[in-house]
Formats: sequence, C-alpha cells, structure tokens
Amino acid sequence: MSLSSALLEAAVDQLATLPGIGRRTAMRLALDLLRREKHEVNRFSEAIRRMRDEVRFCEVCCNISDEPRCAICRDPNRNESVVCVVEDIRDVIAIENTRQYKGRYHVLGGVISPMDGIGPEDLNTRQLMDRVQAGGITEVILALGTTLEGDTTGFYLNRKLTEQGVMVTMLARGLSVGGDLSNADELTLGRSIADRKPYEQSAKR
Amino acid sequence: MSLSSALLEAAVDQLATLPGIGRRTAMRLALDLLRREKHEVNRFSEAIRRMRDEVRFCEVCCNISDEPRCAICRDPNRNESVVCVVEDIRDVIAIENTRQYKGRYHVLGGVISPMDGIGPEDLNTRQLMDRVQAGGITEVILALGTTLEGDTTGFYLNRKLTEQGVMVTMLARGLSVGGDLSNADELTLGRSIADRKPYEQSAKR
Repeated sequence: MSLSSALLEAAVDQLATLPGIGRRTAMRLALDLLRREKHEVNRFSEAIRRMRDEVRFCEVCCNISDEPRCAICRDPNRNESVVCVVEDIRDVIAIENTRQYKGRYHVLGGVISPMDGIGPEDLNTRQLMDRVQAGGITEVILALGTTLEGDTTGFYLNRKLTEQGVMVTMLARGLSVGGDLSNADELTLGRSIADRKPYEQSAKR
Repeated sequence: MSLSSALLEAAVDQLATLPGIGRRTAMRLALDLLRREKHEVNRFSEAIRRMRDEVRFCEVCCNISDEPRCAICRDPNRNESVVCVVEDIRDVIAIENTRQYKGRYHVLGGVISPMDGIGPEDLNTRQLMDRVQAGGITEVILALGTTLEGDTTGFYLNRKLTEQGVMVTMLARGLSVGGDLSNADELTLGRSIADRKPYEQSAKR
C-alpha cells in the first residue's frame, strides 16, 4: 500500500503501532482525524502527549495519579492494613466498581512473563516489599488474572510475602454468578468442586 | 468509570472519539502508550498533529497529497480523458492495487448522506464539474460503494454530468470472482442475471 502523502503514511504507521490496530484500521482512523477541524486534532494529540509527559505514579501504591499520593492512598476512611495487589489501573477500577473493597491497593504495572522478558524486577515488587517491611499490613490479597503469567506472579509474591510473615490471600475461583454449569469451562468447574464451601456459610450472601 | 488521573482521563476521552473505539479499548490504548518511552509518544502525537496541520489536497483531483498536485495527476503516462470518481483515498489505493486502471481520479471526500446532513455542496462535486467543464474529459467512471448513499451520490452525479455531455459509466455489479452462486446475496445474484453478457465477450478475459 503506497500512499500519496508521506504525512498521512507517517500517521498511519504510528496509529498501527497501537495494540489490536492493523494498517487498514489505522488508515480509517487517520482519515477520520483528517476530516476534523485542526484545533480538534491538536487537542487530541496534546492529550496523548501530556498524559505521557506529565502523568505520575502514586509514591505509595504505584497507581496512576496526578498528585504524589493517589486519592485512594490519601483517603483516611480506607483500611491501611489490607493491600490488594493488581496488575494495572483497570483492575483497580473493576474492583472499585464492585463497592466490596475498602482497603488499599498496590499496582504491579504488569505480570511476570518470561516469554516477554518481564521479571519481578521490571514490576513494582520492590515497592510492595518495602510497604510490607515498613509494618502495619496484616493481609495482602493477590488479585491477579487467572492466566499462566498471573499464576506465576502469584506464586512468586506468595513466597516473598510469606517470608515477611504477612497473611497472603487470593481471589476465589469458581462459577460466574448468573452462569450455567454447562457453560463453565472444565478447569473452572473442577476448581469450584475442589473449593466447595458449607452451604450455610455461602448461600446467605 | 472514574479514574485517579485527569490526564489519563483526558487521553482516554480523546482516544474514545475515534470510530469503532469504545472506552474500554481507549483505556487499553492509553495504558499501552503510558508504558512507552516519552520520545516515542511524542513522535506518535506529532505524526498525527502534523498530518492534520500540513497535509494538503491535490488542486486537480482533491486526493491527499504533500504537493500542490498529486503524483497521479502529475504522471504524463496516465490518460487525462478518463476520470474515476471515488469516495476517499482508500478507494484510490484499492483501484491502484488492481493495476487495471490508467486514467485519473476525482476524490469526493465522502458520499451524499441526508441522514448525516451531508449534501453535494459538502463534497468535492464543484471541482469535478469544473474539471468536466474545462474540457478534455470524455468519460467519468462512478466507482462508488454499493450502499444507499453511494447510489444516491451516483444518481446525482450522473444527472449533473450527463447535462455536460460527458459519458458516465459505473463499475459492474455481479458475482465475486472465486465466489459460489449459493454464497451470493439475492440482490447481487439478481443483478448478475439482469446484467448478463454474451459468453464470447466475457469469458475471454
């Protein structure tokens, strides 16, 4: 595909670097941007540049924040002794949306993935261990994805954290609420049998 | 979804204005950009800003071009007397890729769509009529999409162009090459029967 404009080509090349965006889609996005007013496209490109240039990370939990400490770490009504470890800010948003959690977070910024060359030192694990060593934390909840990488990361963190004498828990795995048994995959259904709980204790919720 | 960073929120808002990109995808794209080096993100946002600020349109055919006249309009080996009218630059690329066409183009920059408030005056129709009136053009090929909007645009242009005494043609509609009869939709199959051609004339190709 050779374009009649090097400027258009450069923009399409850049848009095509985004995850899940191929060259055809990138072309569609570029043509959409071309049809807009100049000041709109300026605002678009500025928002992206400023985000990368100016965003910072909370000095406590490594969450994205515009201030040195994020709003959750500054909130005095949240339980400081429980820390929920997640991969990225999307997981924070998902858990906050449940309104079930009133503790703090720690954002790893990824998961251990030897295939992609990502080890513990590439994540915010050092900051997590420092928080635990500083004292006052009684429970760390590992809220990681149920993938090979999530499991690997959980295995690593559980070992390190248990050495520090802190209680480590993980999210329950089992049937989706509102889901059929026949729709659940074998691993999940198997896990839900192995992890079954007394009826009285569970059904009350 | 409330984010901990207004900068991130602004970037997600902007990315979500792109066609086909919802807020979840926009968040994924923003987090991907956040993980990159600052100079990479600068290059990304600059390529988009420069494209919109500096790109121009060919003064003859309205195609995107970095120079006053596009490469196709400057090419002396292309037939000036045949003009192929298309919706946008993607159609130019698609036709060029067939290597079957050696005439010139005219890029409308859209199609007539009353639902979206787009009339002939919002497209490059004036420039097309000016080209035809200037003389030297014997055939105008309407290479528009086979949608309601494409048909409306074709109907409008055919009337205007015929008034000028120029021959107006349109792309053939029929079975896809390599396609089964049972896979063709009813409208296409019906059209391919109505537009059937003498075997000797068609099968030789």
